[in-house]
Amino acid sequence: MAFSFPQKVLFKHCDPAGIVFYPRYFEMINDCVEAFFAEAMGWPFEEILTSKGIPTAEISTRFQSPSHHGDHLTLSLSVTRVGGRSVGLAVVARAGDETRFTAASTLVLVDGAGRPTAWPDTIRQKFLSLQEGPDHAP
Amino acid sequence: MAFSFPQKVLFKHCDPAGIVFYPRYFEMINDCVEAFFAEAMGWPFEEILTSKGIPTAEISTRFQSPSHHGDHLTLSLSVTRVGGRSVGLAVVARAGDETRFTAASTLVLVDGAGRPTAWPDTIRQKFLSLQEGPDHAP
Amino acid sequence: MAFSFPQKVLFKHCDPAGIVFYPRYFEMINDCVEAFFAEAMGWPFEEILTSKGIPTAEISTRFQSPSHHGDHLTLSLSVTRVGGRSVGLAVVARAGDETRFTAASTLVLVDGAGRPTAWPDTIRQKFLSLQEGPDHAP
Amino acid sequence: MAFSFPQKVLFKHCDPAGIVFYPRYFEMINDCVEAFFAEAMGWPFEEILTSKGIPTAEISTRFQSPSHHGDHLTLSLSVTRVGGRSVGLAVVARAGDETRFTAASTLVLVDGAGRPTAWPDTIRQKFLSLQEGPDHAP
Repeated sequence: MAFSFPQKVLFKHCDPAGIVFYPRYFEMINDCVEAFFAEAMGWPFEEILTSKGIPTAEISTRFQSPSHHGDHLTLSLSVTRVGGRSVGLAVVARAGDETRFTAASTLVLVDGAGRPTAWPDTIRQKFLSLQEGPDHAP
Repeated sequence: MAFSFPQKVLFKHCDPAGIVFYPRYFEMINDCVEAFFAEAMGWPFEEILTSKGIPTAEISTRFQSPSHHGDHLTLSLSVTRVGGRSVGLAVVARAGDETRFTAASTLVLVDGAGRPTAWPDTIRQKFLSLQEGPDHAP
Repeated sequence: MAFSFPQKVLFKHCDPAGIVFYPRYFEMINDCVEAFFAEAMGWPFEEILTSKGIPTAEISTRFQSPSHHGDHLTLSLSVTRVGGRSVGLAVVARAGDETRFTAASTLVLVDGAGRPTAWPDTIRQKFLSLQEGPDHAP
Repeated sequence: MAFSFPQKVLFKHCDPAGIVFYPRYFEMINDCVEAFFAEAMGWPFEEILTSKGIPTAEISTRFQSPSHHGDHLTLSLSVTRVGGRSVGLAVVARAGDETRFTAASTLVLVDGAGRPTAWPDTIRQKFLSLQEGPDHAP
């Protein structure tokens, strides 16, 4: 049930060592999450942000193997945890069979004043339907 | 023994919600690590990179509280673990008394072919002299 | 004969005013030029850069109208001038009928030492075949 | 009467060719303009942006000579034209005696709805006092 996001490694992503500068990976992850909300959830960021926010509260990332200019990555995003006001996501980036990085993050829905707020019911149901495995948080 | 790195939150760091876009925090962290190697370690990245690399192998970050345009942050970097070919770093960013984010990362020294390689002795001794606490890795 | 490059305005592109931060437009332009070389020229950057470089020597840009998060832009790239060692490009970005920005740039082919060097014949012919109008530089 | 802004070329600025990726120069320019408004004009962006905007309407840049990781640049910003609702700026970046790039830009003050609006009198006077030469626009 993973959401798939292709990303070629472009010139702008790469550092003097010829490999991806890791802060650029977080832009890729954010682009992937943004595409996931637009395409899989039907709730694009540009709509959410008219009244709410959806900041990343935490993210842990392992960079297993470097990516070079021209590599064709696929980021696979899965829903790992569905809370009342937060959601856990996992992103794995691969080039062919090789894993380049794995990331686990928690996003929180906030209102206009930055206070955590409950997911709309339809959104929470959608997360649950996409979630892999039984790890439903309260 | 933390290395201190001031960083005003600039226009370029901020997103449509008026707060720091989190991938920009990783650029700040990288700038802080680069300044630490240049100023505290006496081994600037532009020297290291003539023959070696020092990629980030993993990083975990918690974003406790948002930062707004114009905020004056201070990033404090500590050495938390000294390995033979890697080093653990912790970075805490504060605005006044408020913690904005905390990060823990592992950097690995690699040779020109990308293989992990041992720290020069003087560098390892320097890390150890800067390290806080007794958590020396083998 | 323009090369067309679609680009949705993403969260990462936008500033606290909710519009594209203009340095991000230059990343879009660079991505468009990189796609043009890969797809229209058959000479991808990751190949060029194994032995050469293709830096931007100058670029002039007018930002006619702001772009907002979620806008669907199309960048249209044309070859405007073909020199022996340089090429002139024009990029126009539109959302529907509205022009958002126009850019004119000159790129120079350089060898491994950074010295301007002649286009391979097949590349120069390809530029000429793509060029609009009679403005062939010597 | 130029405003001086030091900028070391950092790892994040550089591309696989080991030189500054040119969109990063526009971030440097924006940082320089932001520091100019805060320090020379006494009107920081974070204040302006509570009710207004100050977008870049056009910018022309020549990249004379590449900059490498570790280079110490100085950006010098001058006011070249003072309009009723716009201002012309020139930025020259040098490393020692060598010019790396020159840029000329026009910024426009806009109100909350994005319409051009007149500079506050004190700001316009300040621009005029900083301007070099007699080229006062109407």
